[in-house]
Formats: sequence, C-alpha cells, structure tokens
Amino acid sequence: MAPRRLQIACAGLGRMGARHALNLLNKTPRAQLVAAFTPEPSEIEWARRELEPSGVKLYTDYDEMLKHPGLEAVLIATVTTAHAEEAIKAIEADKHVLCEKPLSTNVDIAQSVVDAASRKPHLKVMCGFSRRFDASYREAHDHVTSGAIGRPAVFRSQTCDRLDPSGFFVAYAEFSGGIFVDCNIHDIDLALWFLGEDSVVKSVVATGVCAVQPELRKHKDVDNGVGIVEFWNGKIAYFFSSRMMAAGQHDMTEIVGTNGKLTVNANPVDSLVEMHETTGIRRTIPPDYWGRFQNAFVTEANEFTAACLDNTKLPVRLSSSVQALRIGCALQESLNTGKKIYYDEVGRRIEAAKL
Amino acid sequence: MAPRRLQIACAGLGRMGARHALNLLNKTPRAQLVAAFTPEPSEIEWARRELEPSGVKLYTDYDEMLKHPGLEAVLIATVTTAHAEEAIKAIEADKHVLCEKPLSTNVDIAQSVVDAASRKPHLKVMCGFSRRFDASYREAHDHVTSGAIGRPAVFRSQTCDRLDPSGFFVAYAEFSGGIFVDCNIHDIDLALWFLGEDSVVKSVVATGVCAVQPELRKHKDVDNGVGIVEFWNGKIAYFFSSRMMAAGQHDMTEIVGTNGKLTVNANPVDSLVEMHETTGIRRTIPPDYWGRFQNAFVTEANEFTAACLDNTKLPVRLSSSVQALRIGCALQESLNTGKKIYYDEVGRRIEAAKL
Amino acid sequence: MAPRRLQIACAGLGRMGARHALNLLNKTPRAQLVAAFTPEPSEIEWARRELEPSGVKLYTDYDEMLKHPGLEAVLIATVTTAHAEEAIKAIEADKHVLCEKPLSTNVDIAQSVVDAASRKPHLKVMCGFSRRFDASYREAHDHVTSGAIGRPAVFRSQTCDRLDPSGFFVAYAEFSGGIFVDCNIHDIDLALWFLGEDSVVKSVVATGVCAVQPELRKHKDVDNGVGIVEFWNGKIAYFFSSRMMAAGQHDMTEIVGTNGKLTVNANPVDSLVEMHETTGIRRTIPPDYWGRFQNAFVTEANEFTAACLDNTKLPVRLSSSVQALRIGCALQESLNTGKKIYYDEVGRRIEAAKL
Amino acid sequence: MAPRRLQIACAGLGRMGARHALNLLNKTPRAQLVAAFTPEPSEIEWARRELEPSGVKLYTDYDEMLKHPGLEAVLIATVTTAHAEEAIKAIEADKHVLCEKPLSTNVDIAQSVVDAASRKPHLKVMCGFSRRFDASYREAHDHVTSGAIGRPAVFRSQTCDRLDPSGFFVAYAEFSGGIFVDCNIHDIDLALWFLGEDSVVKSVVATGVCAVQPELRKHKDVDNGVGIVEFWNGKIAYFFSSRMMAAGQHDMTEIVGTNGKLTVNANPVDSLVEMHETTGIRRTIPPDYWGRFQNAFVTEANEFTAACLDNTKLPVRLSSSVQALRIGCALQESLNTGKKIYYDEVGRRIEAAKL
Repeated sequence: MAPRRLQIACAGLGRMGARHALNLLNKTPRAQLVAAFTPEPSEIEWARRELEPSGVKLYTDYDEMLKHPGLEAVLIATVTTAHAEEAIKAIEADKHVLCEKPLSTNVDIAQSVVDAASRKPHLKVMCGFSRRFDASYREAHDHVTSGAIGRPAVFRSQTCDRLDPSGFFVAYAEFSGGIFVDCNIHDIDLALWFLGEDSVVKSVVATGVCAVQPELRKHKDVDNGVGIVEFWNGKIAYFFSSRMMAAGQHDMTEIVGTNGKLTVNANPVDSLVEMHETTGIRRTIPPDYWGRFQNAFVTEANEFTAACLDNTKLPVRLSSSVQALRIGCALQESLNTGKKIYYDEVGRRIEAAKL
Repeated sequence: MAPRRLQIACAGLGRMGARHALNLLNKTPRAQLVAAFTPEPSEIEWARRELEPSGVKLYTDYDEMLKHPGLEAVLIATVTTAHAEEAIKAIEADKHVLCEKPLSTNVDIAQSVVDAASRKPHLKVMCGFSRRFDASYREAHDHVTSGAIGRPAVFRSQTCDRLDPSGFFVAYAEFSGGIFVDCNIHDIDLALWFLGEDSVVKSVVATGVCAVQPELRKHKDVDNGVGIVEFWNGKIAYFFSSRMMAAGQHDMTEIVGTNGKLTVNANPVDSLVEMHETTGIRRTIPPDYWGRFQNAFVTEANEFTAACLDNTKLPVRLSSSVQALRIGCALQESLNTGKKIYYDEVGRRIEAAKL
Repeated sequence: MAPRRLQIACAGLGRMGARHALNLLNKTPRAQLVAAFTPEPSEIEWARRELEPSGVKLYTDYDEMLKHPGLEAVLIATVTTAHAEEAIKAIEADKHVLCEKPLSTNVDIAQSVVDAASRKPHLKVMCGFSRRFDASYREAHDHVTSGAIGRPAVFRSQTCDRLDPSGFFVAYAEFSGGIFVDCNIHDIDLALWFLGEDSVVKSVVATGVCAVQPELRKHKDVDNGVGIVEFWNGKIAYFFSSRMMAAGQHDMTEIVGTNGKLTVNANPVDSLVEMHETTGIRRTIPPDYWGRFQNAFVTEANEFTAACLDNTKLPVRLSSSVQALRIGCALQESLNTGKKIYYDEVGRRIEAAKL
Repeated sequence: MAPRRLQIACAGLGRMGARHALNLLNKTPRAQLVAAFTPEPSEIEWARRELEPSGVKLYTDYDEMLKHPGLEAVLIATVTTAHAEEAIKAIEADKHVLCEKPLSTNVDIAQSVVDAASRKPHLKVMCGFSRRFDASYREAHDHVTSGAIGRPAVFRSQTCDRLDPSGFFVAYAEFSGGIFVDCNIHDIDLALWFLGEDSVVKSVVATGVCAVQPELRKHKDVDNGVGIVEFWNGKIAYFFSSRMMAAGQHDMTEIVGTNGKLTVNANPVDSLVEMHETTGIRRTIPPDYWGRFQNAFVTEANEFTAACLDNTKLPVRLSSSVQALRIGCALQESLNTGKKIYYDEVGRRIEAAKL
C-alpha cells in the first residue's frame, strides 16, 4: 500500500501561489495537491493547463474549496490582505495552515490568527518564513547553537531587491506595510531565531531615503531603509533593506559572537561560473528572491507536510512570526516619525522621558 | 486525465542505484518508477522499505524485470562490468536506456552498445554523463556557444575526490579501468562537448604518481594523474585527477578562449556560509560528487524522461561517450607505458617514428 | 645637485610613532628625517639604535625639537591628549604639520587647531586619516566620482579590531573618547569623503553592547557599537565597530548608489594564499590595522611631503577632520544617553520636540 | 655615523631596468645607487632627469661603469642576450651580481656564469627569480616546509599574460627562447623550490597552440603552452603559459600534498574593491607582472643588498636557476619535436627505446 499523502489545497495562484502549487505537485512526495483556489480568471486558465490534468480540482470560491472532500491542509498564498481571514476560516474548518508571510500588515489582525490557532492545538499553523528553511541559514544556525562563535551579540541582516524600473513597488507600497514590514521582516524573523525568540525589545529606531522613487513618500515608505533594534539581553540587531540593487537579489546576514563571526551569503553567487573578461572577473547573482530561495520553499512545503502527517513540531512558531511583525511595524513607525521608540523590560512601550 | 508518465525501471540499487531510484520516484514528475532490479539481498531489503510501498515491483532477475508489463525504459546503475550486457538486452527488448557511465571500461564492448542502439533508432539510449546536466556547466557552455570567449583553445579540467582513508579505491581500481577512465572520463567528455565532438585526437600523453596508495600500482593505477590531449584542430585539453583531496570533492574546469576565459567551480562552495575564526575565514566544500552534482542527476532523469515521452533529441550522443572512453583508455595506456601516443588526421593510431 | 628634501621631525616614537619615523627614513624619498622627539627613555633607546645612525637628532623636549635648525615640518604621533597642543606649537613655529588622528577627543580643542592653522595659510596642516590614502579606497572614490554607481545614497562602514584578550582597550578607553571616536571616526571621515564634505547632519543615533568587556561601561564605552547618521541631503551613513573580531582586522565599506554598489574589503585577504584542509578552504586576514593599511601610511607620508615641497593642495581638509570628530562625539553621546540627537538644516542641534 | 650602504650600479635602463634603478634609489635603504649604464640615448635622457640629480653617475659603456670607484655590486637588467657576458665581466671585476632572469636562453652559456661565480666564492651572484621574493609564495613555502600539506606530490603553475594586441611578443619570440623559457621558467623555478632543488627529472613533454598569433610558428613558438615534468622522486609538475588572457596577468600555483593543498593566487585581485553592477559582481586583476609582483622586486633588491653587506646566504641558488633553464629548454624542444624526452636516474638524457 502506498504511504498516505497529505491532502492539501493551494489558495492563490499568482506569482508565488503558482510556484507553491507546482512545488506541492511535483516536489513534495508526501503531499497530494487536491484542490486550488483563485478568483482570477487568468490564473484559472493557467491552472486548467498545469494543475487540472494532474487531478487538482479548481475553485473560484475559497469557502467552497475548504469543503473539498478529505481536505486536510491549506497553503495560503493569496494577497496579504486576505491572509488572516482565510487562515482563520481554514483553522475553523479544522485544516492545517501554511500561510505566506506576513499574516497581516496589522499586528492585531495577525494576533487574531494566533488566537484562532491556539483554540485548535491539534492543528499545524505556520507562517512561511522561507529563510528558516534555507540550507545555509540552517547550517549557520547549527553553528551558533553548537557554540561555534561563542555568545551572539550583534546581528546584521539585509534584504535587498534588484531595482525594478517599472516602478511596480510604488503601487505595491500602498498595501505592503512598508519596507521594514515587507522586506526586513525576514531579517527580523532571523534575528529572533538567532538571538533567541524570547529576546525582549528595548528600543527601535529607523531611517530611510527615497533614492530612486520619490513617489514612495506618499505611501509613507522609502526605497532604502536602515534600522536598529536593541534587546534587553544586551544584544543588537541592525538591518538594511533596499529596492535598488543593480546586480540582483542580495539578502545577507552576519552574526557576530564573542568567539567568531558567521556570514550567510556575504558573497552571493548564482552559479559556479566565473567569467574572465577584458573588464575583469565577473560573476552573476540571483535576479530575485526566488532565484535565491527556491530550494527553501521546497523544504518548507516538505517539512510542513511531514509535521502535519507525523504530528511533529513545526519548525517556526506562529507567535514568533507575530513578534517579527510587531518589530517591523515599530521600525516603520520610527522611520515615519523620526523618533526612537522605547520599551520596558517586559516589552511595554514607554516614553523617552521615562528613561 | 492525468498526463502519461514514462514507465521506467531501475537496475541496480547500490549507492548510485538507490539515489537514481529515489530521484525517479520523487523528483521526476513525468516518470513512474514501476520496477527495480537488484541481485543483492541487502538492497532488496532497502527497496521493500523505500520503494515497494510506492508501488514499485522488485526483481532479483534482470531478464524478468525487462518483461515487466508496460515497461518502456530502464535506468542501468549496476556494476560497470554489467552495464553493456544489460544495456544491449534492454535495447533488444525495445526499451529506452539511460546507462550510468561508463558503458564499459573496454572500448570494443562500449562500441557494441552503440551498434545495438543504432539498430533501434526509435529508442533513446544515453550514457549518463551527469556533468552535462549541471546548471553551471550548461551556463558555461551557453557562454562559449554564444562566442563570449572567442574561439576556445585550451581546456583544463579536473576530477578530484576527497581522500578515502579506508583504501576503498585500491580494491575498486581492479575494475575501474584506472583513474583516467574512472575519473577523468568526465573531464574528457566535457572537453569533447566544449571543444567540439568532431575534434580528432592528435596525441595523448599521461603520467601519474601513487602518493598515498602504493598498492594501486599492482592494478596499473595511480592516485594522482596528469594528462594532455592534443587535437588536430589546434586545441588542447589537459586533465588532472586525484584521490587525495583534503577538503572534499573539487571538480573544476576552465575554458580558455581567444577573447576570454570561463571557469566552472574554481571556487568550490558547499553553502553560502563563511566562518570567521581565530585561524581565518573558512568555508566548506562538498564532501563528494553527490554533494556537488545531485541536482544534475535530477535534471538528467527529467530530461531523459522527456526525450523518451516526447521523442526529442537526447542531450548526450552515445557515440561521444564511447569517444570519451577511447581517450580515457589511451591516457591510461600512456600512463603505464610512459609513452606518448600519436594519431593521424583521421584518428588512426600511428607510431612516433612516422612523425 | 640632489633634489631638495623636506626637513621633517617625528614627535612620538611609540608604536605608531616608530612606524612613522621609519617610513620617513626609508620610504619617503623626498623627505629627510632630521629630528625625533620622545619623552620615553625606552623609545629613546630604540631611536639611538634605529634612527641616530642615519643622522636623526634625538630630543626629549618637544619645544627644543621645534628649534632644530632648518626644520620645516613635524609629524605628530604622540598620545592623543598631546596632539592639539603640539600641533598648535608647531604651527606657531611655522612648521607644516601632519598630525595622527584624532586632533583631540574634544571638538573645541580640535577646532582650536583649525583656527591656528587658518592664521597661517601658507602652512600645510593635515590630520592623518590613513584610509584616504589607501589604494582601494581611492579606486572606489574614483569610481563614485566618475558616476559609476549613480548617486550614492547609503554608506555603510565598519572598523573591527581583532579581540585583544589582554584587556588593553579597557584601560585605553579612558582616554580614547570611546569606540565611535576612536574606531568609527575613520568610517565617518570616509562617509564625508564619499557622500560630500558639505553634507549637513540631520540626526545621529547609536547603541552598543559590552559583549566581552563589561568593565568598559565605567568609561562610558562599549566593545560593539552601531550607529546611524542621517544627512539633510537625503543620504544615510551607518556604522559598526567592534573590538572582538576573531579572525583579525576587518575594516570594510560599501557605498550604495542609484546605479550600483561598491565594496571595499568585503572579502578581506592577508595574502594570495588559500589553504585546502580537511576542515575546508581557509585564508587569513590582516591581524591589525597596520597589516591592512601600512602602504596607506607610506602614501600619506609621501603625499604630505610633496604638498609641503611643491605647495600643492593637501588631500584631506582639516575642517573635515573636525567635522568627523563632531559626528563621532555625537554618536558616543547618543550611545550613552540612549537618545537620538537632531540638527536643523544648518547643522544646529535641536530638540526632538521641535520636529 | 650613518650605516654603510652597498655601492651598486644598474646595467640597463629599459622597462625593467628603470624600475630596478628606482627601486635601488628609493626603496632599498641599505643600497646606494652610484652608477647606471645604458647604450640607449633615450634611456640616458630619462636617467639624466630621474637618476643623475640624486648623484647617480651615468655610463654608456658597460666596462667603464665596472670601473666606477668603490663599486661593489651590479644589477644586470639589459637584454637577455647580454646577461651572461656582463655577469661574467662583473664577476671577474670582483663585483656582486644580481642578474635578471634568465641568465641566457642557452644552457651552456648560463652554466658558464655559474662556473665563473664558483671561481669567486666570496661574491654573491644571483639570478633574479622574482616570485621567490613574493610574500604569498613565501607564505605558501613556509606552510609546505612546516608539513602543513604533508608530502607535496603534484605541482601546477601557470604564467599567463594579458593579450597584447600589438603583436609585440611575436617579434620578442625571436630572442625569448620560447614560451616555456620566457614564461614558464618562473613556474619551473618554483617547482624546484617547492618540490626540492635536488629533484631529478625523469621525463619532459610539452605541447602548444598558436591561438591568436600564427606568426609565432616561424620562431618555433606558441601563444599557449602546456607541459608536464615528471621527477624520479615520484613528483609531478605541470605547467600552462598563455599570451592571451583577457582580464590581465594571472600567474598562479597550486601545490597538492598528501594532507592538503595550497593555492597561490587562485583568486587574483588587483585591489580590495568589488563592483556590483547590472551585469553582476566584478573585480579587476593586475594588468601585468609588474602590477602583480612589484613588491617582490623591492624585497629582492633589499635581500640581495643585505646578503652582500652581511655576507649571508643568498635566497636563490645560481645552479638552481640553470636547472630551471635546462627544463624550460627541454619543454620547448618537446613542443617543437612533438616528442617526449626521457632522462635516467642521474639526469642523463636517454632514448625512449631504452625504457
């Protein structure tokens, strides 16, 4: 008898959703993609061609999809504004949930997903912070856990996208929550993972510039941001995000400990080819985050599937994902007010005057 | 209706065979692994656990396996000495064949597979030179084809294994055909691919040393070999192979053209992590060829499958694989006689005196 | 007739002073080291052996040294607390001055040197920010000036020393001015150079931790510091300094522009050697700033000499050096108060409430 | 009293000679350049401007220069064809000699310099193999000597020049001795240094192509050469030389030992700058050997000077330089005859038939 496979649906078949659906179909042996949902006609068309022949039932109504016979789990990859509501509905329908990040750009709404999940402790509910599934980040985390660099003290991380001259990200900024919520949230999540998820924030400060897209200002956003987060346990994380890299995606991280330092992707590579030309030696780097992290998404799908089937612990805690969002929102606020934000030792916000 | 999948069997479930079988099972969406053969009880045991539950029928008799209902193709990953006979049987049974390299360590036997295949032109028969499926090698080949480095003139390539202190490769040398046939055959195959498969050999010369395993001498082999192949079209390829790398597998290639140079894996990396320690900055490299080329094997399985299903051209010509073997055997002979070997402009061997 | 050589003296023969003296003696063809001053008996002893035989007159009194017949210039490399007074005395004695950084840890005192110099416009007075003389930084600056990366928008720079387990830097912190004044002042100076020396500071914020030396707190210092400086022209600089690198000195900089990015020393190397070992591939990096910047100090001595002899423009403006100090002191203050510091568009400090 | 300085003359003020003269003048504190010789009017003109003002006496007659009062040593940097005769004259005039490589392109003539030197054992006579003075090569050699890589077994080294489209090197080939004698002689010298100067050659074989300059054939030369040298002690060296690099000078070496591997300049860099551009990440490399080895030439001048003044051992043995030439000439012969050349265990040439 063939091993049981997780009956899973994919909600959303846009850029990311389509990739998730194909991963579930072709690269997640223990999962069976049985259903997919999208309200978009063009995406349905794609799905008729790419998914339906493999036995995937297509839905244009999310609630209907949840009723698909035997469905056990849902991967949510719709627009961010829909994430929380769909996640809660799935939880209430007793489905495991893997939700693309972020749960929401609003902390309270994100928290409501956590609350819903906590009422169904038998379900596996996870926000998909893909970098936690990347082999290099895991190798680095193992080194840190093993004490290889002593006690980590300073954490630096950046999410830097290739310049998209179409100006796409200006329109996108209206709903993205801002560069610290959209980009650096990955770095913040990593900071919590590497410095300890129980680290309590002491202060948050950020600044930024609109170097290539002055229009971002109307959405209270920037195309380059720098922020610092200080924790009460004597650790610091600082972040950079940018929308104007020339060479491609350059997401990197370094963890400075008392006995050593680790870097992840300090030297980005797209392949093992180097070109010796009259202008020097050149290598290319991944054009986008998919080029950099596509294997991580496959691992994510497989590990989520295994956790559901085997009832084992998920690799990312949902509450940590909300904490990352909380910090991202504070950084974005600091960017916009120009003010540093302070917290007491139990994490309650305080005024500077009380320092 | 679900798309038709290639009904394929895997012959041999040893170290490589098991990997091939799992690739066909989990990472080759258009193939269906329906059968597997191995005469080894321990491998059968493994297969009962890992393959049978997914509907793979197990055989301990190769000929029986060939009769598996509906079988269309066979991947041969048994011991090298069995490759040719099994390949010919499969061809005669009208199956497509993907055979692990080399077809044989004997040129005439290898040629007999080509002859058998040529009698069944509707079949897809390919020798699995995995590096041709590696993304970096393909990127480099595309650059060369596009003229990025001008006319390629000098080709350097090496296959260097991590030292296996168990001495495994001494016993292995008895049947491997020698270091030029076992290791450098990959580099020779790449040389033909990059310099032109119609390149005619002008001379071959090789030497080597037993630096860590003097016992290799009894099998007419060495643990470090260097060889040069000169072609009549004014191009040169030179090779290095070693069994004693400290850091891991380091297979690399450089192609020197009249306008530039390309390197593939001049800077090996196992991940994107770098460690800053008191002794300096350190990175690790893949421990073995599987660590380096595992994605290439997946691509190989998928492309072979597609060629069978769609009746399209195979990416590697079988005759080229025999030509690579022919050159590898000549290098091994030169190593052992100490003499340079010469060929005329149509590729017939000649004596030095006739120069 | 031999070309005229600049008659120069070296004040201070400690670690740096001795190096400067030897550079002037052996590697600055157009300068002639004619005198040296130190109050330290052990340094005098060294100088009798290393300098006196080459005709260098030794002094234990700075004022006497200034009267050395024919003296034209003084290189000041004494303790920081003596820099300003000695520089002013030299200026008043009509000598050109090359003073080790910083002029002082106090902004007003540093400004008094600028004031003294401005009364003697025929003299060459420069603060020795060695990185401006480093070939790689100059290459990067040339690229930026030529427009290679578009408009620079974000500047990141770090000064990271190898951990000195002797705790030397704790005692040193008493007089160093703190990590932002002692270490990051180089990065701040570079920021002004790359972003424009007329950039007006809008805000300054910093934080830090004592990760390895809690005793630093009593000197209001840290062993790891992070700071952000925002300029009114829409540019940002952010800095990291550390006293606990494992591998060696790692000072690096990146300049992010609208069309590209430049890094200086993102991949530190001490030599062109790489070691392939069982633990991976390893390279070493310079142990200290001397190992990294020794050639820059030679260039500095030669260019200062040339400017004096040829009456040409100095490569570093004295007022810029004071501006770097001003920013460094503000970062150190922000570190200690925990507060962000704000400035108006003409650079006057303002309260946050006025934002 | 100032320390005594070596009274030295420079013969030849062409491209290399001028550099040597300036090194002796400005960067060799213990040497005093007192005289210079060149028959070339344009070089004399340059020397009047650059050397004479510093007290250097100019000669257009080599023999006259040797009579310069107090002269102790001569650096010979004239055309190769003059090296041996001038060296012998200097030796006979009782002067120390530092001669640019090679002593000659003819082994017997080179040997006559060794013979002359052996009659004056109190003199320091050295052939300037600059790479032995390079910091990275020395670091690598120290590692090998300390046993860091076990027993060295395979040595690979290349000398690769940037393509000079002027065709200069075609004319140059008439007198250079050929690519193995002109370029790879450095690599051969390094092989002897790293593998043991008492290593006895067992066989030599070489091949090559004219990829960009077919005219080289008339001078029995090529623009790309590959050669293998096998030693009786079970070690192998193999070489590559090229005149057509696109990116710049790329001279590199790797030493493969039983416990590890060392590379020197596997990753060439010209500076610490990296450029992130739309086409990827790029770095430049030195344009020529001077860019790569200029510091080595300074060290060479200083160490030769010290050996003369202090009567200490020279860092390079003269007989080793002749042995390197002998191997280079054999490789060039093998290139031209197409035949492998064999030697017995005491280094006498033998016929293949006697194998």
